[in-house]
Amino acid sequence: MDTYDIRFPTSRQLDGSDAMNPDPDYSAAYLVLRTDAPDGLAGHGFTFTIGRGNDVQVAALDALRPHVLGRSVEDLSADPGLVSRALTGDSQLRWLGPEKGVMHMAIGAVVNAVWDLAAKRRGVPLWKLLADAEPEWLVSQVDFRYIADALSPEEALELLRRGREGSAGREKTLRAEGYPAYTTSPGWLGYSDEKLTRLAEEAVAAGFTQIKLKVGADLADDIRRCRAARAAIGPDVRLALDANQRWNVAEAIEWTQALAGFDPYWIEEPTSPDDILGHARIRAAVAPVKVATGEHVQNRIVFKQLLQADAVDVVQLDAARVGGVNENLAILLLAAKFGVPVCPHAGGVGLCELVQHLAMFDYVALSGTTEDRVIEFVDHLHGHFEHPAVVRDGRYTAPLSPGFSAEMYPASLATFAYPGGTFWTDDLAAAGTAGDAEPVGAAGVVAESVEVTA
Amino acid sequence: MDTYDIRFPTSRQLDGSDAMNPDPDYSAAYLVLRTDAPDGLAGHGFTFTIGRGNDVQVAALDALRPHVLGRSVEDLSADPGLVSRALTGDSQLRWLGPEKGVMHMAIGAVVNAVWDLAAKRRGVPLWKLLADAEPEWLVSQVDFRYIADALSPEEALELLRRGREGSAGREKTLRAEGYPAYTTSPGWLGYSDEKLTRLAEEAVAAGFTQIKLKVGADLADDIRRCRAARAAIGPDVRLALDANQRWNVAEAIEWTQALAGFDPYWIEEPTSPDDILGHARIRAAVAPVKVATGEHVQNRIVFKQLLQADAVDVVQLDAARVGGVNENLAILLLAAKFGVPVCPHAGGVGLCELVQHLAMFDYVALSGTTEDRVIEFVDHLHGHFEHPAVVRDGRYTAPLSPGFSAEMYPASLATFAYPGGTFWTDDLAAAGTAGDAEPVGAAGVVAESVEVTA
Repeated sequence: MDTYDIRFPTSRQLDGSDAMNPDPDYSAAYLVLRTDAPDGLAGHGFTFTIGRGNDVQVAALDALRPHVLGRSVEDLSADPGLVSRALTGDSQLRWLGPEKGVMHMAIGAVVNAVWDLAAKRRGVPLWKLLADAEPEWLVSQVDFRYIADALSPEEALELLRRGREGSAGREKTLRAEGYPAYTTSPGWLGYSDEKLTRLAEEAVAAGFTQIKLKVGADLADDIRRCRAARAAIGPDVRLALDANQRWNVAEAIEWTQALAGFDPYWIEEPTSPDDILGHARIRAAVAPVKVATGEHVQNRIVFKQLLQADAVDVVQLDAARVGGVNENLAILLLAAKFGVPVCPHAGGVGLCELVQHLAMFDYVALSGTTEDRVIEFVDHLHGHFEHPAVVRDGRYTAPLSPGFSAEMYPASLATFAYPGGTFWTDDLAAAGTAGDAEPVGAAGVVAESVEVTA
Repeated sequence: MDTYDIRFPTSRQLDGSDAMNPDPDYSAAYLVLRTDAPDGLAGHGFTFTIGRGNDVQVAALDALRPHVLGRSVEDLSADPGLVSRALTGDSQLRWLGPEKGVMHMAIGAVVNAVWDLAAKRRGVPLWKLLADAEPEWLVSQVDFRYIADALSPEEALELLRRGREGSAGREKTLRAEGYPAYTTSPGWLGYSDEKLTRLAEEAVAAGFTQIKLKVGADLADDIRRCRAARAAIGPDVRLALDANQRWNVAEAIEWTQALAGFDPYWIEEPTSPDDILGHARIRAAVAPVKVATGEHVQNRIVFKQLLQADAVDVVQLDAARVGGVNENLAILLLAAKFGVPVCPHAGGVGLCELVQHLAMFDYVALSGTTEDRVIEFVDHLHGHFEHPAVVRDGRYTAPLSPGFSAEMYPASLATFAYPGGTFWTDDLAAAGTAGDAEPVGAAGVVAESVEVTA
């Protein structure tokens, strides 16, 4: 198991800027599970962070090494839940959460690497592995502890059996038409109104039927930006708003109501992701504007309560925040049980690549629909991945390469390793002019993908 | 800022064993803030962990160093909230929580070290610093974000002003009589019935009016152990039960009802600390048995909801789980607002030493009462501290030494540093017989305190 502290200098263009995160350097605490199997395959996984603290996340990955070293590749491929259970069940590591924050995200990264390996060895993309799996086996991959009051194993089995009906037809549709996306690229808080307008028009021209705007720093600015966005996209394209946890409950209600005239589709992260009761009150007050959250929701237990409390209209699961595919299966099953659509969070580093597999499995073999479902898309950093997410005409194309699409190019790992990678050492050498230095990417693909969006 | 990975080999005697944590090695990710002030004073703080992962917690402390280095000692002493706000407000580090898990506990340790320093420089114990502080200043130390819907700054000010009425008399009572304690020492899950009975009888003889038993591994065992405990302590001493998050909601209700005949005072951590709605359902079902939780509650936002949802009878705040004294002020204020007693979690490494200050402040200058309030006491590892918590006749004695009682002996730090301290290097050298090796403590106090309880 090799680990890497990978950081991209995204803060220099204010890509990714929002009301809570003014200057993110998109980063990944990345790992590779290498094996001695003759096929030479390796499992890749990562946690997404926004810069400082990525080293702490790598330390957490390193702490998990004893749980994976020396395990049988055959056993892991047959039952990725083995590692999921071992990691979340380590009582000493559990103390550091439980099942939340740095340690839980590290567990998710390792678990996802095991799924990447399993899918590669099976020779299929992860969504296909999941969609073809026996319902009983999928249920065996889920930890029902703390969610059994909302979803029993028997109910999960029933949902998955029903989800299989007609799955062949939906798989065909998915391969032909892809899965709906929306884009956040126009809406970063640091962008000028002109850039916002231009990118919003480009998004509509590119086939997107929903865009998203960051809000929450200044109400007058938000009103002006919403007006510009609505003017650019017209009345029929959905306009989602994202406050990135900026508000208290009362502020969230007032601010959302003040923007209601621009017909927002949802308000995302109106307050703390921990505040289930707060979300319920906000939702009741701002309807028909929908309430969405999830990218910072720590685990299945909080998602369970958001659903039990009628606190959300949209579940925004994140592929790299919770305990990996196994816990995301639980979250998808909970959402299906409560009939709430899942619109995954993506962007960051590689989140689009990962989460498309979960949404596509959900469509083919669980919820069975893409109605009111969209996967976030941000046009950042995809060029670092061997099999980047591909969005055409506003839709994610179904990935066909074996695995979880998690693998970054070795050149990207070498270039952006922090602080020893060539980008950062060159940057340090050029310290005086670092602010406007061009990316020094070792491979063309690296230089391309650092420029992002604009 | 120096950091230390300190680990004690407590798993060898099964001290601290419970239904979720069978073999804890009580540990501390410890830090010292040194200054160049002529008084030579230093601030000490730590996070408690149970072994593996303590290195990750130390890495998180190290990540916070840039926020404290070079700050003015005068500024910090005048406003510990400076560091609290800087740390919780670092948007990149916030991504790793937010406000939960490894990074948040590290923030709490640093913030607590600042308070230790501030109280030492003032020449008073922390409880006295807080009890004498102006209500306006205390309010300025609290972050109301995400709790303002339950507690406004104005309400907090009013609670603190009312709390000051009669505080001089209560301080006198506290100094004379101490603060009520209960003991968990008899009840560890790994102990035999004979040991349980003996320790329970000793606890009553020592003046405790409440003891606590770990439950949740096996119902037949629990029934037998509750019977033995109740027989040992008689009908008038309170018997608290602690399931350490072992159960789903339905299990928690059934199991607690099955033990109700032994007249338990509270059931603690019946399920996940994240499950606010679950606690509310359990509480409604098991009354008059009270529901208690808090040692793993991640922050003020979850405590707020536990109170809003009528989910707990007892708030068990922990001095080293949340973001330090500042966030615990918020939690004490929330509990006072809702009229729910605070019975702090303690034990571990140094948690008794820290948390007594918070409970005593609450008594003297906030809630104004010790009715139905007890601080947990476990007779573990106190000998490593310069100013150990002192319990006499079942009551904590008010600490009089300046500071937060957080400071460990240099000899303890040197001996139990992992893996380089002399205990661990000697242990490694004696590998074959490590299981029953005697502690090798460099100082007498070390050898004494490793033996614990028995």
